[in-house]
Amino acid sequence: MKLEIPKGMRDFLPEDMILRQKIIDTFRKVFESYGFQPLETPALERWETLASKYAGGTEILKETYSFKDKAGRKLALRYDLTVPLARVIAMNPQLAKPFKRYQIGPVWRYFEVKRGRYREFYQADIDVIGAKSMQADAECISCAVDCLQAIGLKDFWVRISNRKILSAVIKSIGVKGKVLEVMRCIDKLDKIGLKGVRRELKKIGVSKRAIEKLMSVIKIKGAPGKVLKQVEKIVRGSKEGEDGLEELRDLISFLDAFGKGKKILIDLSLARGLDYYTSPIFEIISSDPKIGSIAGGGRYDEMIAKIAGLEKNIPATGISLGIERIVNLAKETKILPPRRSKVEIYLAPVGEEVREKAISIAQMLRKEGVNVDIDLLGRSLGRQLEYCDKLEVPWVAIVGPAEVKRGKVRLRDMRSGRQKEIKIELLAKEVKRCR
Amino acid sequence: MKLEIPKGMRDFLPEDMILRQKIIDTFRKVFESYGFQPLETPALERWETLASKYAGGTEILKETYSFKDKAGRKLALRYDLTVPLARVIAMNPQLAKPFKRYQIGPVWRYFEVKRGRYREFYQADIDVIGAKSMQADAECISCAVDCLQAIGLKDFWVRISNRKILSAVIKSIGVKGKVLEVMRCIDKLDKIGLKGVRRELKKIGVSKRAIEKLMSVIKIKGAPGKVLKQVEKIVRGSKEGEDGLEELRDLISFLDAFGKGKKILIDLSLARGLDYYTSPIFEIISSDPKIGSIAGGGRYDEMIAKIAGLEKNIPATGISLGIERIVNLAKETKILPPRRSKVEIYLAPVGEEVREKAISIAQMLRKEGVNVDIDLLGRSLGRQLEYCDKLEVPWVAIVGPAEVKRGKVRLRDMRSGRQKEIKIELLAKEVKRCR
Repeated sequence: MKLEIPKGMRDFLPEDMILRQKIIDTFRKVFESYGFQPLETPALERWETLASKYAGGTEILKETYSFKDKAGRKLALRYDLTVPLARVIAMNPQLAKPFKRYQIGPVWRYFEVKRGRYREFYQADIDVIGAKSMQADAECISCAVDCLQAIGLKDFWVRISNRKILSAVIKSIGVKGKVLEVMRCIDKLDKIGLKGVRRELKKIGVSKRAIEKLMSVIKIKGAPGKVLKQVEKIVRGSKEGEDGLEELRDLISFLDAFGKGKKILIDLSLARGLDYYTSPIFEIISSDPKIGSIAGGGRYDEMIAKIAGLEKNIPATGISLGIERIVNLAKETKILPPRRSKVEIYLAPVGEEVREKAISIAQMLRKEGVNVDIDLLGRSLGRQLEYCDKLEVPWVAIVGPAEVKRGKVRLRDMRSGRQKEIKIELLAKEVKRCR
Repeated sequence: MKLEIPKGMRDFLPEDMILRQKIIDTFRKVFESYGFQPLETPALERWETLASKYAGGTEILKETYSFKDKAGRKLALRYDLTVPLARVIAMNPQLAKPFKRYQIGPVWRYFEVKRGRYREFYQADIDVIGAKSMQADAECISCAVDCLQAIGLKDFWVRISNRKILSAVIKSIGVKGKVLEVMRCIDKLDKIGLKGVRRELKKIGVSKRAIEKLMSVIKIKGAPGKVLKQVEKIVRGSKEGEDGLEELRDLISFLDAFGKGKKILIDLSLARGLDYYTSPIFEIISSDPKIGSIAGGGRYDEMIAKIAGLEKNIPATGISLGIERIVNLAKETKILPPRRSKVEIYLAPVGEEVREKAISIAQMLRKEGVNVDIDLLGRSLGRQLEYCDKLEVPWVAIVGPAEVKRGKVRLRDMRSGRQKEIKIELLAKEVKRCR
């Protein structure tokens, strides 16, 4: 039998995992510095939850893994971390609000396997539940920006818009019944270009004049100082549009307070694919056009109440960092140097009579918090050094009978090849000193 | 629509997650100190891989979630982390040996929902691939013991045995064709007691005399110094049995070198449920009989080659820590104090005119590595303090206009209720000092 991994899935070998963990650990730390608390939901959800018409929408359901369990209940692998959060909020009314949580984990979608898309991929989400203020949206955006900067990324921008503005424009040009449909067309802009969007809009019956008006609006983008005036003109006379503008101003002013003003671009072509966003929407894009969007989110004040059948809305906003694209970007830009292993020192016993001594040295170093590996195969010193070279271990301590008698080992710096004798009790200090 | 979580699944709210993460992070650190490297495999595997007759066995397959994907391929949620590892090893012959990896993550089994068993649960596995020496088994056991001690657990024992010994006994009493079946009966000892085991053995056709002999053997347990002599007698004359004894002696002597000798019990009633173990088997049990086994493993030198159809065996050994039981034990024994939130300080702006100042103080503290939360709702100070009480936040900084003018805030110790004025630039230091 030939062993295979399921199509569209990946194993992460140590070299990949060390980089992924570095990124995820950094994000966790930044999330916690913003007061987000960890939450975990199961991989499986009831189909009915994910398939709610107020959840991710029909497009995403086509890509959802689902099946019946042995009791005949329809289950599905979660396609995102937001709908499970909505379920948790609805099922746990006792949670103090605002409830700020993060969740980092895999989601599953039955994508066509192409263009580097995988059927299992990680998201890192932060959400604030129970706060109407744009301060909450600004907090999510600022936190995401700090995450990316904490791993060394610099070349990215935050695009922001507000659905109320686009919605007001769409209604004003006489396509009232199709707001979401029009937004879905605009959302495809990055994939199909302006021409493609025109074609799609025509297909759903938008008039030529209305299309031209829309085109002029979605071209509006730039730093807030430059384009806010243009946005003002567009929304004039529409209550919904003016509300959106006020939220946009508020959000920008909070982002200034968070020290993130210079990263912000207003971009009215931003639409976001999901139906449930109600007002601010945002996306972080890499300056590298091959990579594109690396995080995205927005406010979804109605979704939780609708999905749970509650009478009163529960305001909510959040952002999702796309771990796979961020890992790719980190690899390409080499901001995080690759590591083959996290071993700091390898102990090479020379002969069986010093093996137990080597083990006890290993235990001593581990107690000091040093990552230690040790020969398990009784190989020759040459073969052991080859192994350490392959795994890029920085130090090897050669444990020989003569040195051990003097309370010492030979310490080899694998980068320079230099060796020196060192007292066993100084080993931990030396390795830590050169970290 | 009533929102529900799938039967047998759980959400982990922040208080639970903080404890779980503490345990998992500690294990990761200890794993890495022993030179184990991170690996991650997908949640889904091809059914054929998991259903190999050399993998987990038919019992476990009955509890495996499986389904056909949209292309008609049969997939399954992994039921453990060992079979996926075997697949990774078979598919990646380039990996330098010994290959030492850890993997921490959920596995899924369609259990009857009872007795605190859940259908999604975490395992934390370490395995050494490519080393025949008992040093590898000792390394896994020692590492697991250090993990448990690192989170403060003390009252547990390591039971060890060797399948070759039990196998030799079974063959010597004339039940040659049923070695695995007999082992499976003995494995149920903790659940069904000695009487139950007798009954099960009778059911599969073991003679009364053979049962008595088996009963006398599986009663042998105790510190190595005490019972090794008895084991010697039992295996005398059987090559297989004597091999097992020699491995047992070797393992014990390595465990002594690792400083773990005092935690070890030889226990010939240990059988382990999985078919693929070939020689040493081990289990860590809590002294609390309600909890029972909290880790288990053994050597499986043949499984990888058989599952992958290779000609040459790839020696392998490992241990799996049962996160759910360890979390329960940590809760019961209160070795890790519960925390409602990881927020260290909450900023309470008194009035809207100091909100932006409060945000900038938050940003300053976050840069210093402090976990900060801040008012998002414009609530009264009293309501904000209630919220902080509920989340057990240790410090609140009250940001008032008058104090801010003097470059200060009022810092409130939530445990004592005491307040004092403090310079803003000293806040981070003060919070860190009292961590």
